[in-house]
Amino acid sequence: MSSHSARLAALREQLARQRLDGFVVPLTDEHMSEYVGAYAQRLAWLTGFQGSAGTAVVLPQEAAIFTDGRYTLQVREQVDGGDWQFVGVPETSVAQWLEHHAADGARIGFDPWLHTRAWVDEASAALAKVGATLVAVDTNPIDAIWPDRPAPSDATLSVHGDAVAGRSSADKRAAVADWLAEQKADAVVLAALDSIAWLLNVRGADVARTPVALAYAIVNADGTADLYVSPGKMTDAVRQHLGNAVRVHDRAAFAPALGGFAGKRVAVDPSLSVAAIPLAIEAGGGTILALRDPVVIPKACKNPAEIAGHHAASLRDGAALTRFLRWIAIEGPKGGQTELSAAARLQEFREATGALKDLSFDTISATGPHGAIPHYHVTGESNAPIEPGQLYLIDSGGQYADGTTDLTRVVPIGAPTAEMRDRFTRVLKGHIALATAVFPHGTTGQQLDALARLPLWRAGLDFAHGTGHGVGSYLSVHEGPARIAKPGYAGGGPQEPLRAGMILSNEPGYYKAGDYGIRIENLLLIVEREILGGETPMLAFETLTLAPIDRDLIEPALLDAAERVWLDAYHARVETALGAVLEGEDRGWLIERCRPIGR
Amino acid sequence: MSSHSARLAALREQLARQRLDGFVVPLTDEHMSEYVGAYAQRLAWLTGFQGSAGTAVVLPQEAAIFTDGRYTLQVREQVDGGDWQFVGVPETSVAQWLEHHAADGARIGFDPWLHTRAWVDEASAALAKVGATLVAVDTNPIDAIWPDRPAPSDATLSVHGDAVAGRSSADKRAAVADWLAEQKADAVVLAALDSIAWLLNVRGADVARTPVALAYAIVNADGTADLYVSPGKMTDAVRQHLGNAVRVHDRAAFAPALGGFAGKRVAVDPSLSVAAIPLAIEAGGGTILALRDPVVIPKACKNPAEIAGHHAASLRDGAALTRFLRWIAIEGPKGGQTELSAAARLQEFREATGALKDLSFDTISATGPHGAIPHYHVTGESNAPIEPGQLYLIDSGGQYADGTTDLTRVVPIGAPTAEMRDRFTRVLKGHIALATAVFPHGTTGQQLDALARLPLWRAGLDFAHGTGHGVGSYLSVHEGPARIAKPGYAGGGPQEPLRAGMILSNEPGYYKAGDYGIRIENLLLIVEREILGGETPMLAFETLTLAPIDRDLIEPALLDAAERVWLDAYHARVETALGAVLEGEDRGWLIERCRPIGR
Repeated sequence: MSSHSARLAALREQLARQRLDGFVVPLTDEHMSEYVGAYAQRLAWLTGFQGSAGTAVVLPQEAAIFTDGRYTLQVREQVDGGDWQFVGVPETSVAQWLEHHAADGARIGFDPWLHTRAWVDEASAALAKVGATLVAVDTNPIDAIWPDRPAPSDATLSVHGDAVAGRSSADKRAAVADWLAEQKADAVVLAALDSIAWLLNVRGADVARTPVALAYAIVNADGTADLYVSPGKMTDAVRQHLGNAVRVHDRAAFAPALGGFAGKRVAVDPSLSVAAIPLAIEAGGGTILALRDPVVIPKACKNPAEIAGHHAASLRDGAALTRFLRWIAIEGPKGGQTELSAAARLQEFREATGALKDLSFDTISATGPHGAIPHYHVTGESNAPIEPGQLYLIDSGGQYADGTTDLTRVVPIGAPTAEMRDRFTRVLKGHIALATAVFPHGTTGQQLDALARLPLWRAGLDFAHGTGHGVGSYLSVHEGPARIAKPGYAGGGPQEPLRAGMILSNEPGYYKAGDYGIRIENLLLIVEREILGGETPMLAFETLTLAPIDRDLIEPALLDAAERVWLDAYHARVETALGAVLEGEDRGWLIERCRPIGR
Repeated sequence: MSSHSARLAALREQLARQRLDGFVVPLTDEHMSEYVGAYAQRLAWLTGFQGSAGTAVVLPQEAAIFTDGRYTLQVREQVDGGDWQFVGVPETSVAQWLEHHAADGARIGFDPWLHTRAWVDEASAALAKVGATLVAVDTNPIDAIWPDRPAPSDATLSVHGDAVAGRSSADKRAAVADWLAEQKADAVVLAALDSIAWLLNVRGADVARTPVALAYAIVNADGTADLYVSPGKMTDAVRQHLGNAVRVHDRAAFAPALGGFAGKRVAVDPSLSVAAIPLAIEAGGGTILALRDPVVIPKACKNPAEIAGHHAASLRDGAALTRFLRWIAIEGPKGGQTELSAAARLQEFREATGALKDLSFDTISATGPHGAIPHYHVTGESNAPIEPGQLYLIDSGGQYADGTTDLTRVVPIGAPTAEMRDRFTRVLKGHIALATAVFPHGTTGQQLDALARLPLWRAGLDFAHGTGHGVGSYLSVHEGPARIAKPGYAGGGPQEPLRAGMILSNEPGYYKAGDYGIRIENLLLIVEREILGGETPMLAFETLTLAPIDRDLIEPALLDAAERVWLDAYHARVETALGAVLEGEDRGWLIERCRPIGR
């Protein structure tokens, strides 16, 4: 019996002890985080699945693992098909599957600290149809059988200074207090880790690649806050920074505190909070106001200091990436380099800036066929040599105190084929179309997404991911609420109005399975655009990212005059900005790569 | 006291007699029709409002009329502000207003044959908050006080032959029966007049500009149908065409028949059916399945015969419009013509085809400032002279047995200004961008709408209406379900996937209040587009409408190479097609107006 089969058997025994007929294992934490710490990697421990999104359901006689289209192949490689059924979402939801597989009268367990209330309501309704019930557990049965489960990180908090944050925490909390008054609410519970970090101007190191700390916060009508965090995480500097208006409590005191709102109105964001939070407040006699986390919009709309920080980070990071592009241009065709060695070399260039805090995500270093997997994650096992004739795709970013970066470039190792140039140029046309869009206030990402796809659509091609995601300021590289994507994207991001100050990625791509992948990604800042003679206030994008786009992959004849103007102007800006910070041969290479494209 | 004030007073007396504390007066009929017969024009009779959309609410001490942004000015001109408050929708819904204005315990009446159930539920919930109730009336109180209310039309039905319809009614009904089997339903009630006309291959003349008959239909699991229609409307030819599988009943028998579904499952489209229908079915012991009308999609996706008909109608109608364009080009600058005389002349050209059944809507003949009112309706009072220096806008269409047309052209009377040419060319660029779009299956109108607006957005401009609506086959010129528009458009049309065979208008515009209006409208057919080397099946548009676009309004320098190619190719196609049917000086003029644009 494999170790994962043994774990599944142990879980079934544990469920029997807890008098449960099933259990649902999501991949999230008590904050509905996208990336979760090792202590919360219960799905991977149970099933072996290493993807970033999925859910498992264990019943007495059967078990299923639910993954989306990105992981259709990967889940079958990593998870034992003898033990597990493979189910695709969103075609079949966990609730739908339970409705057809749970036994009449079954008690299906769930951990209320790991699901939203909307999920609980949906699954409960589905189970009710077959006479089964969803049962909240007090202790997670996986934790009971996972002997060496890692402890949550004990990393300390750090101060995110007011100068780089652009606003004091007191000012931010006063704005939340104004909002509470408007909503006639007594308090708001913040469960999203990046919301807490932004509001209090602190950062943490509890989650890989995202500088947040495991904590909860409650902001009160008077602008004071209660922060619930493991005591060992506090430092004198952070305590002094937070001041008297932020009371610090042990994280263990959070759940009991939720019971203390009798007769009060408490705002909770239903999409960012686990079900346990509103349930505990209601159990204590409080009234829930289901409202969007009031930090989401001000956090997404960067202030002038944050924007200045992103410009500085883009310059620094673009220079490091450009040094890497020159390195791979020289070393790639020689042979001997691999996806892992290239990713390591890029990290050295970033570390040489002296400002790198962390990568903003695990670098996607993908050569040849691996480039066709949009979320490829290189490991010791998958590590492939970089070889002539391939396209090499590098999607990476850095966490700097002044900004989070994310950019993708593709480099041909040797001469690219005509098809590669055609596809790359179409992706570039889409990238330019989005970068140059001008649009009225109220426009949403779903209205602009087609601009980035149309040059591919004309050739009967498309790409199966969103075009753009929000990016935080030394926070999450995937930040809500807006997104540039087709309307069906989960979470409603494509329906969110775009606002000045938001930063979004612009990353159309093309993927030829088994052969190569293309993606061109820059970050865009949304700005107010004054137009002479205009009648309607308009927004537009300003490209933040600075790094040359590989000219050998561009077919100039496919670009129209306006596209060539954009490309040459972009490269002129890259040359001026990076030329001022790069030196010697790096600078010479940059200038050569940034010359006008001609036709 | 004005006649409208007297009517309002009479209604209040009638409400007191019916023991009601208020009444809601919508502008629709028992079929939720967009255009309604004179007998159902209760809102206009009561208030004097002549717009095409609105609602009135009458309370004992106050009364309000609800209109959308199109009618903000018009409602104030036509309705007495002493008697009526003016309320804007969607900012304030009728339900929201009632919640704040209805007295505690009030009984607010509504006619259940004039509202959807969703509206009833929303308004009931709003009134419940203030202890008031919504009360269904048996007889409409307006009808009781409207002595000379027109009788419903007694026009007879006519046969829409299988050759032009492309499918027999028996075949269509068999498909509905298959759908009923899939849904495990016993019957479906069709309340939408165009659905009934399409399903039975009949047409009517009860509603101005739309060839439908006032009727209800029920389709049964065996593919037979029950048609409820006033007996005087039937002819022997129609009876013979319908055959034995369609039982004809008096329209008065419809409401009682709804009570006969005890123990049955009956499909009803909640958005196309008035509340009285499901209420009567449930009162009789039937179960409602709230499902989309099964005729909506097959009706919208034209079959080959219908497509051939649209091509023939477009050619015929485009030739008539082109004769008119030559006429106005000659007569306009001379002076002496008016909006009404021009509309009449255009109708003569259409009638000269010998095939015109009706106009497809009241012609929008708008010169100068009137062109800036997108839904301008010329009357004897508003009729303006067509004068040099103006732009003249003509938005019109014809109902032909083989197809419904709708097109808009703008003609400069004398030399246009540089601004007019700039604006017209930007509208044309948007029109071309939409016309040339290629997109995958599943794409919705809200994803493509921005293509038609972007050239205006870049100049700080926009237009405040949708970009495209569906068009029927010798049916409604505004046909659901799809629409090309911004996401917020009421009714969900922008969220509807575009499908091959649908016909949609492409009509971006620009409006300068008090000065001029521009709109360029062609009809588009959605077609499957095979692409060599493509990986994803694609859809594209084929422009159906044939008529020259005024070259004097185009600034060639603003067009890029691809746009000039499209324009020249379109004009070449127009010249070839219309040149084969136009004669003499009309043909010579056409050829001159269709020559390549140059730059």
